[in-house]
Amino acid sequence: MAIKMYDLCGADDAHRFSPYCWRTRMALAHKGLDVETVPWRFTETDRLAFSGSKTVPVIVDGDTIVGDSWDIADFLEEAYADRPSLFGAAIGRAEARFVSHWTEGTLHPLMIKVAALDIHDLLGPVDQAYFRSDREAKFGATLEAFTHGRDGHLPALKAALAPFRRALKDADYLCGSTPAYGDYVVFGAFQWCRVTATLDLLDADDPVHAWRERMLDLFDGLGRATPARQ
Amino acid sequence: MAIKMYDLCGADDAHRFSPYCWRTRMALAHKGLDVETVPWRFTETDRLAFSGSKTVPVIVDGDTIVGDSWDIADFLEEAYADRPSLFGAAIGRAEARFVSHWTEGTLHPLMIKVAALDIHDLLGPVDQAYFRSDREAKFGATLEAFTHGRDGHLPALKAALAPFRRALKDADYLCGSTPAYGDYVVFGAFQWCRVTATLDLLDADDPVHAWRERMLDLFDGLGRATPARQ
Repeated sequence: MAIKMYDLCGADDAHRFSPYCWRTRMALAHKGLDVETVPWRFTETDRLAFSGSKTVPVIVDGDTIVGDSWDIADFLEEAYADRPSLFGAAIGRAEARFVSHWTEGTLHPLMIKVAALDIHDLLGPVDQAYFRSDREAKFGATLEAFTHGRDGHLPALKAALAPFRRALKDADYLCGSTPAYGDYVVFGAFQWCRVTATLDLLDADDPVHAWRERMLDLFDGLGRATPARQ
Repeated sequence: MAIKMYDLCGADDAHRFSPYCWRTRMALAHKGLDVETVPWRFTETDRLAFSGSKTVPVIVDGDTIVGDSWDIADFLEEAYADRPSLFGAAIGRAEARFVSHWTEGTLHPLMIKVAALDIHDLLGPVDQAYFRSDREAKFGATLEAFTHGRDGHLPALKAALAPFRRALKDADYLCGSTPAYGDYVVFGAFQWCRVTATLDLLDADDPVHAWRERMLDLFDGLGRATPARQ
């Protein structure tokens, strides 16, 4: 039986944009597991009540319910230990956590300055009201003011990517000759922007761009099948 | 027979300050290998001619000569595969490379702005002349101008450490419950400053400070045995 995965979407079911859901989506594909995604929207917390989680991703695998992308990755790694590993070993798992903290602390804050208003525009009216109110309180600015002059953040993002770009000189993927969870973490961030933002973040000659293309090709073009706005 | 390791030092043999040599020193200890360090100074390139390398670390293990800290780590991991692993597996090795690029691209440039003149002051006259000339050309400023107002860089360094600090909420070490090569990479950077800089970089209540204390305790206090200037 396919694993059920609650997956954040916009007004249109096809717009799957959560960076954390993309981590899980890619991890499920990495393990070669069948998945049935369930479109879910920001304000549908009652539909997740069964799980104890207020946010997605949430997966249901038979009798097992797991929320939080990290807990899901740990569950998949243990429950499907005979499938390709997401982490390699304990050291690789801990280092992937560092990659995740770097992604969330360095890339996400720059990306949201580009994408915040575009994300809003993809949502239905009820979710737009929630998103605007929640995020404007968090940012201390209207979405319009927060994303004003957003092109100006691209040089900082490109500079922030330097260690990742250098890693791509060593190997095709952050995790080596084949991708693993660390790649899915960074890919989640880029997919978040690719699906929502009307502005691309990467120059065509950036090695990170070439890596993103490789990531979009994985698993029969799983990431590429989701519509991009650029 | 002990492995011989050429190790950068100041005018005083006791001042071992190269971040790259510290990676190797810790990696050798991690593998439980006996080491005989050979003090080496910046301008003694003729003493390394046998190795084909112009910089340290260089190790001599029987008939095998290896330079470059990464090549040494790879050599140790393969030649002493039965000893505790530095990387865990291929994914962990690739992720450790990312940690290294992050360390060199993010931490080192801020640290050298604090430590450059202090490093100079630890060297003998011939090495001082080389270091000043080489680094001033690289920095485009005198060492004095480059390090002027150096306290002002500490907030940026503390901010840059954010993803590492968050990783230390998950586990005692970057690499998990026990340290591995990713930790030695970051430790090398801190040991570089600890041995040279007359100014400490870390507040006593910073979780990174507590991690550094744990790292200094490893291998019977190997790192702590080297005199600090703070």
